[in-house]
Amino acid sequence: MDNSQTIEKLYGITTATIIAALMKRGIRRAVMKGVMPMVPSTQKCVGPAFTMRNIPIREDKGGAEKLGDPKYPQRVMLETAPAGSIVVMDCMGEPGSAMAGDLMAARLKVRGIAGLVGDGGMRDVTETATIGFPIYCKGPTPYPSTNAFLAHELQCPIACGTVAVYPGDIIVADGDGVVVIPAHLAAEIATESERQEKVEAFCKEKLLEGRPMPGTYPPSEATMREFEEWLKAGH
Amino acid sequence: MDNSQTIEKLYGITTATIIAALMKRGIRRAVMKGVMPMVPSTQKCVGPAFTMRNIPIREDKGGAEKLGDPKYPQRVMLETAPAGSIVVMDCMGEPGSAMAGDLMAARLKVRGIAGLVGDGGMRDVTETATIGFPIYCKGPTPYPSTNAFLAHELQCPIACGTVAVYPGDIIVADGDGVVVIPAHLAAEIATESERQEKVEAFCKEKLLEGRPMPGTYPPSEATMREFEEWLKAGH
Amino acid sequence: MDNSQTIEKLYGITTATIIAALMKRGIRRAVMKGVMPMVPSTQKCVGPAFTMRNIPIREDKGGAEKLGDPKYPQRVMLETAPAGSIVVMDCMGEPGSAMAGDLMAARLKVRGIAGLVGDGGMRDVTETATIGFPIYCKGPTPYPSTNAFLAHELQCPIACGTVAVYPGDIIVADGDGVVVIPAHLAAEIATESERQEKVEAFCKEKLLEGRPMPGTYPPSEATMREFEEWLKAGH
Amino acid sequence: MDNSQTIEKLYGITTATIIAALMKRGIRRAVMKGVMPMVPSTQKCVGPAFTMRNIPIREDKGGAEKLGDPKYPQRVMLETAPAGSIVVMDCMGEPGSAMAGDLMAARLKVRGIAGLVGDGGMRDVTETATIGFPIYCKGPTPYPSTNAFLAHELQCPIACGTVAVYPGDIIVADGDGVVVIPAHLAAEIATESERQEKVEAFCKEKLLEGRPMPGTYPPSEATMREFEEWLKAGH
Amino acid sequence: MDNSQTIEKLYGITTATIIAALMKRGIRRAVMKGVMPMVPSTQKCVGPAFTMRNIPIREDKGGAEKLGDPKYPQRVMLETAPAGSIVVMDCMGEPGSAMAGDLMAARLKVRGIAGLVGDGGMRDVTETATIGFPIYCKGPTPYPSTNAFLAHELQCPIACGTVAVYPGDIIVADGDGVVVIPAHLAAEIATESERQEKVEAFCKEKLLEGRPMPGTYPPSEATMREFEEWLKAGH
Amino acid sequence: MDNSQTIEKLYGITTATIIAALMKRGIRRAVMKGVMPMVPSTQKCVGPAFTMRNIPIREDKGGAEKLGDPKYPQRVMLETAPAGSIVVMDCMGEPGSAMAGDLMAARLKVRGIAGLVGDGGMRDVTETATIGFPIYCKGPTPYPSTNAFLAHELQCPIACGTVAVYPGDIIVADGDGVVVIPAHLAAEIATESERQEKVEAFCKEKLLEGRPMPGTYPPSEATMREFEEWLKAGH
Repeated sequence: MDNSQTIEKLYGITTATIIAALMKRGIRRAVMKGVMPMVPSTQKCVGPAFTMRNIPIREDKGGAEKLGDPKYPQRVMLETAPAGSIVVMDCMGEPGSAMAGDLMAARLKVRGIAGLVGDGGMRDVTETATIGFPIYCKGPTPYPSTNAFLAHELQCPIACGTVAVYPGDIIVADGDGVVVIPAHLAAEIATESERQEKVEAFCKEKLLEGRPMPGTYPPSEATMREFEEWLKAGH
Repeated sequence: MDNSQTIEKLYGITTATIIAALMKRGIRRAVMKGVMPMVPSTQKCVGPAFTMRNIPIREDKGGAEKLGDPKYPQRVMLETAPAGSIVVMDCMGEPGSAMAGDLMAARLKVRGIAGLVGDGGMRDVTETATIGFPIYCKGPTPYPSTNAFLAHELQCPIACGTVAVYPGDIIVADGDGVVVIPAHLAAEIATESERQEKVEAFCKEKLLEGRPMPGTYPPSEATMREFEEWLKAGH
Repeated sequence: MDNSQTIEKLYGITTATIIAALMKRGIRRAVMKGVMPMVPSTQKCVGPAFTMRNIPIREDKGGAEKLGDPKYPQRVMLETAPAGSIVVMDCMGEPGSAMAGDLMAARLKVRGIAGLVGDGGMRDVTETATIGFPIYCKGPTPYPSTNAFLAHELQCPIACGTVAVYPGDIIVADGDGVVVIPAHLAAEIATESERQEKVEAFCKEKLLEGRPMPGTYPPSEATMREFEEWLKAGH
Repeated sequence: MDNSQTIEKLYGITTATIIAALMKRGIRRAVMKGVMPMVPSTQKCVGPAFTMRNIPIREDKGGAEKLGDPKYPQRVMLETAPAGSIVVMDCMGEPGSAMAGDLMAARLKVRGIAGLVGDGGMRDVTETATIGFPIYCKGPTPYPSTNAFLAHELQCPIACGTVAVYPGDIIVADGDGVVVIPAHLAAEIATESERQEKVEAFCKEKLLEGRPMPGTYPPSEATMREFEEWLKAGH
Repeated sequence: MDNSQTIEKLYGITTATIIAALMKRGIRRAVMKGVMPMVPSTQKCVGPAFTMRNIPIREDKGGAEKLGDPKYPQRVMLETAPAGSIVVMDCMGEPGSAMAGDLMAARLKVRGIAGLVGDGGMRDVTETATIGFPIYCKGPTPYPSTNAFLAHELQCPIACGTVAVYPGDIIVADGDGVVVIPAHLAAEIATESERQEKVEAFCKEKLLEGRPMPGTYPPSEATMREFEEWLKAGH
Repeated sequence: MDNSQTIEKLYGITTATIIAALMKRGIRRAVMKGVMPMVPSTQKCVGPAFTMRNIPIREDKGGAEKLGDPKYPQRVMLETAPAGSIVVMDCMGEPGSAMAGDLMAARLKVRGIAGLVGDGGMRDVTETATIGFPIYCKGPTPYPSTNAFLAHELQCPIACGTVAVYPGDIIVADGDGVVVIPAHLAAEIATESERQEKVEAFCKEKLLEGRPMPGTYPPSEATMREFEEWLKAGH
């Protein structure tokens, strides 16, 4: 499936508009709880999910030395996740251990990964922020991943922020949080939402001009006719 | 009651000074828990409360289509809350649904509302922040209000952030959070606190000049005499 | 003990690197939970802990009037904590009361204290941020300390953010949070971590040039030889 | 509306069966969060909701002396809620204040009220348990209602345990928790669920005899034919 | 101070009655949050507080081997807390480590200690329950004390369940939770509450006979005259 | 591996003793957080883990109808988990959905499963308790599994109660909670702990006879000699 057009469209659409479109289709469980931009300057990101499942560390199963093993799933992910994808980590909702630090962020950025999303913490947040790579997480922590996480498996369905993520689902993350679009709905939602964003831009313009909310939004038929004119006028 | 002078004074007074004045009068339950500026750039706001009570949505009672009904309390509020008031929403402490997005914020701003305060979430935070309208909430979420809230009633006593708000109470919100001043105490607290802010400004000046805390703050009698001189000198 | 060199070194080392060094020595309980920079612009701070233990206020034990007593431990702390130290307060994890406001921050700054750290709230955060004094806490609140805290004792072992702090332990606080280095380990960890930071800087440079993670970090023997050359070249 | 038959049926139906029937009708937000039997011996209760809305106490609005005012909504409720109803209190989810103690429980019992349900605490739990009146709450606390609650209004829609309760909705409470049946659905759900309970009783009998789960539950057509025989045989 | 009469009286008074008496005196912060009977069969206990302060364990400060040191404060407490006292432990609110197990409970019981109260967990709860020694805690956990706690100091003011406890304060614990009576108020509260319990017993009798709440409780003057007669009649 | 002797021994050993033995071996992350007996009468259980991983339900992936599919992992588990095993479910820590109800409990019991453990809720708790099958969970809820869980995979490593469980690990669950013993350590820990339980039984006997804690527990050499005599005497 070529997602490139869908993804390009989704860069212009807010997570708020997307979840509304999903709710119209009966899908409510699609926003990650507590997964937010790492810093205020974090950029938006969109892309298909490349998933990684962590399980809790246990002292007899090893720790930091795993990071030196090229077959350790986290290391395999760093080298094999496709450019344009968003790495999504199941960290079991644990904020007290970092899914990555500035070195991993640097590698992900260089490899063309579109973003990193997960329900764990982040370390080196000050240094990582300077790299300009979009990261959504549960907040900062100095603890390394091996304080709580053992990477176990790649590209399987996971839980992240209390919602399901299947490999290939389209992830959209912005200042409101992170929404998961089931892969089979992404194209249709992108198209529908693109128009919805224009409708809302038009309505907002009218509201700022002083129109009352009723009739303006949700738009009445008269407002929609005006909108169509506005569109034709090149907006 | 003409609150305009009181409100003007309160724009120069911090919530920290106000809660201290309330505590002297035996009132401790006056700061909203978890209700904070929507973004770091959120401006201070002061005004009488215009309240709205939500109850939890239930699937048999309708959802998003309510927004198209001009008699829906949330829509009535948008058109009838008086200029200068602060809309305060009882969202039952639920951060996972938005009390408003950028369109509602635009309408509130145009209508001259002084601010929006509530113990729910906000959506479209990036777009809303550009409007320059003061909003205090429990954080961002892409979910619309109809994910969890059904607007039920206007201008009744409500709970917000675990404290009571009565219509007409004076709300003051700044970087420390949101404080509720019972209407009957607002004028006297504004007057008393205005002086207190000056005392603190003087004491801070002295502390930054190197004076020890004891004697400087709380100010000794000698310090208060100096303060009176300082005041007379035109500060 | 002269900590000055150790402290100077630690200003160049992240809390993420320090906790990794502590974990290698079997120490995991060293990062304060929920204690974060008061505002995004908060500067890093490093110094030996000067501790203060609070207990919960009780109405028969007095309140705000304590602040006028020069023998009240909080006031004694303000005048006696040594320049260069970091004041660390045990606030029992309670965010709903402030450990300080802008006046106390002004005094601490003037006295040359290196920072204020504690698991309570902060008031006057907007005004305090302008003073340029590093504060790490659980977030803003307008409530004064005497809403919940009674300062009880200075320079005793305390709990802060669920970890132990002994007087003289070295505190390091940055954008990831706050780490406590046991006094007896501080010098050796500073020296070891200084080198580790250089290794990581080198590895990051290589990663940003496009090298794969395996072999680059953790560094292989070949990478370490390159690193030694890089060091000799004056980095 | 005469609910008596519906209520009698519902005494034989579990909350687990009822929420499943509601979910088939698209209603998911119907189980109170955190509202549980006051003690393990608490009996089941069923009845139409008589609602009471609390708001947070504020020191200038009075406290314990309210209890002596016969017009105080809580006191009016005690004397006017109809026999057979279940008193449901909106306590804003606050467990640290009691919705009632043993004296109120005694009065409710004598008046023929079917039960007391709310998202607040209970005091005098040991003494109250001996009265044999069904109470569902968030747990024990010695604090009286006036520590946090001010009764404000009777028989209005409320939030309780994060779900909506409208006066007249049918409440069913058992060891699993409390479910709210919208009034208009109660009769049909009672009838449908009565049969479902029989199906489950039959299936459980078969499972305990050793049949495999597939085919037995959910029942296959063959199992349903057996069930019909079993029913005819007088079960 | 001879507390024996006061303590005997308090065995007949509920924590609910005591906190109401404290609130009349302006004291609200006196009930431990989350500290409850270890098992449903836990008996009531009353006595003066013998306090122990824990701090968080840190790996360089030792662990389980401390228990073998007779000078370790926890061990000193076991041998020196006076018969009749209630041992109160500051566990920093951490439920995931036990303040004691069945061996410590056995020793405390044999020594005549009146009870053990603290804001930590308990281990061996099944075995400990058979000893018949009153324990109030935050719940069961298999982890030993040395998983999280290092006993640091005896007989100092502490925090427990978010409230202050001073050595010698009178602790009363029952099915509603644990209340702390400041030592200087214990005798007067015991005397006043003893009468209040009789008033309530009389009112409850009348309520169970069918009287309306208004006039019966809070009791009217007429009800109080009846009460006096009832008292004289030997109740 | 024949675990039968190990399992028999472990039925006589508490989780408190086991975690202490694990901690001596450097393993601390082995107790499930918040996973407790379903009801006070829940029996102890011991056995090798048969694991099931859930992921969050999503509306486009189906719901209750899955239960009718014999290939649905949850249904496969019911028919294939070996007698003597303990079914351990990864419910992502979500208490608001049931891992099972009384029908599933009946099937598990009949099939000889030793117990059911998981970090989700349980429904039909009253009816399930009468079956006499050991269940450890996060509490009651009327919601069915398909409210939040989709069974995804069997016999893979999982997270449960924030700790790792690998298929075949030995689970021990009692009134203190649930501990996970890595399979390779089970035999040695069972043997060591069996003796430790005897030592503790002896020490407790002595403590109840009035001996002081120091010297008795941890036992001195003299106490250990007495213990050896006591053992020889047939205890």
